[in-house]
Amino acid sequence: LTPATDPAIETDAVVIGAGPIGLFQAFQLGLLEVAVHIVDALPAAGGQCVELYPDKPIYDIPGVPVVSGRELAERLLVQIRPFHFQLHLGQQIAALETRPDGRFALQTSRGQRFVARAIFIAAGVGAFQPRTLKVPGIERYAGTQLLHRAPPNAQLAGRHVAVFGDDDTALCEALDLAHAAASERPASVTLVHRRDAFTAAADTVARMRETCAAGRMAFVAAQPVAIEEVDGRVVALQLACADGSDRKLQVDIVLALLGLSPKLGPVADWGLAMARRQVVVDTERFETSVEGIHAVGDINTYPGKRKLIVCGFHEATMAAYAAAARLQPDRPLLQQYTTTSPRLQRLLGVGKD
Amino acid sequence: LTPATDPAIETDAVVIGAGPIGLFQAFQLGLLEVAVHIVDALPAAGGQCVELYPDKPIYDIPGVPVVSGRELAERLLVQIRPFHFQLHLGQQIAALETRPDGRFALQTSRGQRFVARAIFIAAGVGAFQPRTLKVPGIERYAGTQLLHRAPPNAQLAGRHVAVFGDDDTALCEALDLAHAAASERPASVTLVHRRDAFTAAADTVARMRETCAAGRMAFVAAQPVAIEEVDGRVVALQLACADGSDRKLQVDIVLALLGLSPKLGPVADWGLAMARRQVVVDTERFETSVEGIHAVGDINTYPGKRKLIVCGFHEATMAAYAAAARLQPDRPLLQQYTTTSPRLQRLLGVGKD
Repeated sequence: LTPATDPAIETDAVVIGAGPIGLFQAFQLGLLEVAVHIVDALPAAGGQCVELYPDKPIYDIPGVPVVSGRELAERLLVQIRPFHFQLHLGQQIAALETRPDGRFALQTSRGQRFVARAIFIAAGVGAFQPRTLKVPGIERYAGTQLLHRAPPNAQLAGRHVAVFGDDDTALCEALDLAHAAASERPASVTLVHRRDAFTAAADTVARMRETCAAGRMAFVAAQPVAIEEVDGRVVALQLACADGSDRKLQVDIVLALLGLSPKLGPVADWGLAMARRQVVVDTERFETSVEGIHAVGDINTYPGKRKLIVCGFHEATMAAYAAAARLQPDRPLLQQYTTTSPRLQRLLGVGKD
Repeated sequence: LTPATDPAIETDAVVIGAGPIGLFQAFQLGLLEVAVHIVDALPAAGGQCVELYPDKPIYDIPGVPVVSGRELAERLLVQIRPFHFQLHLGQQIAALETRPDGRFALQTSRGQRFVARAIFIAAGVGAFQPRTLKVPGIERYAGTQLLHRAPPNAQLAGRHVAVFGDDDTALCEALDLAHAAASERPASVTLVHRRDAFTAAADTVARMRETCAAGRMAFVAAQPVAIEEVDGRVVALQLACADGSDRKLQVDIVLALLGLSPKLGPVADWGLAMARRQVVVDTERFETSVEGIHAVGDINTYPGKRKLIVCGFHEATMAAYAAAARLQPDRPLLQQYTTTSPRLQRLLGVGKD
């Protein structure tokens, strides 16, 4: 946990997850004049839609015959623009506790703190985190010799670099290093993948093979089984090769570009009632077993639950009304419609005055 | 009740109401391969959206920052186009009963019969029906001397016509008759509204006043209080004028153009559990107290119910899955996604083969 650096932000609500349901949660809260901060582990809004199927068509959003994941996220960002919400990206909620005054104290993995009166968990299948190498002891070198994002080439100059992965991101990074300017070139570049078959595009694989043939990089079909350390540094990896042989690979830097995988993460430790790793909610308030903490979208469960975006939109709507009634007990919650209410139209920035 | 004329249509499901929720109900049933017929009292699809606010913007459809009621209906019609559903417009369900084989027998006000295994009531605030004049005894002349839609001008030639109403439809019809070709002109045209103030557009009102000044029609600010009959025909209306006087107006035809008003209608007589004139449903299957009859959208109620389109879309989704599981007990109901399922994409007409 990164130590808290910024002062805590006091707000009505924190929405955990900037996927389509988290974004629409912010929209419904905005219409009810509940102030919102949104936190997401990914570096951009959109969640699964953008991370898992940015360019694939979705056909079952009502009133939208076809839309890509990326486009749906963009449309929702346009829709919530009137509300001046704040997005906190590239960080996940690492700590959550209830304060004596009934509010919630939250802290992100980057040290940003919040004090909020309501929480909306819209975390989908969990926070997307880089898949890591399963080699005993290597986790101690995370951030020093084990990296999950490529640093600027200059930082790898003169180093022995092992790149793990089989997709375009991994192969293109290995190629980029192999073809770096002389002043920035690593001492060696070795691509490692468990077998000689790749998910990267065919032409990327072809370029990789040419670059290996030219002697600028190497490919080894192998799995890492152990690290060799000297004086608190990793100096080599023991590899079990696909051909049955063993091999020792000299390394200074291990670049694990294995993609992202969703992790339920700390949500599982917050004491909320769970069933089959889903957060249990009711169907009136979409509230968890803790008053003031709602859960919407793919992360929740209730009788008949369907993991569909159209259902998450409804859940976020119901949760917003329930929370607004609790946060604003003196305000009459008449049903207003965006089509006819001057108040809602003013909030949306489309009012006539 | 019009006598049944057509043979009964045997189908999986009848959806009552072609508003946005009824249309999306057909979409979700289509994805689950449940055959659908849709019935609506209005002459076009779209329901309240098209009848009450065709040109007004809606801002809270998820992923659609702004859309008019008419445009939303059009988009939903495009979305369900792959499914070859059939629309039965301008008629409402007048009779419903359960058959000994557990299926439902339905008949519309136009005599169309259906035999269906499931029913989805998506009737919103009820079936839109013309508002009628509240004058004792006049209802006996409905369809002969009392009309709720303007007939071709030729049918009114030489007749004394009273037009009731204050909106553009009523005023424009009166103007149209007053300016009809000589061979089609009524003997007289009198516009009647309770006061000298109109909801019609200002220029329509100005045209009406000019036409009155030119002696081609008359306007009377009055309310009808009684009819005068001779030999089973209406010959005059007794009017109570806004200025306190009484007046007798000679009439052959009463054209009541008072707009449409939603009526819950026969739904209230089907023996379904109701609460405050809403149909009670559960939140897992959105099913009424009768197995196989679901209710979705503004017509239903359950704890926390919000009359919002976004909620109706979810309700229709859940009802579709519940019905499909009952209608297709042998088919495994794995959750499939339109983004990835070749089967769903084939149904949508976008499959690769």
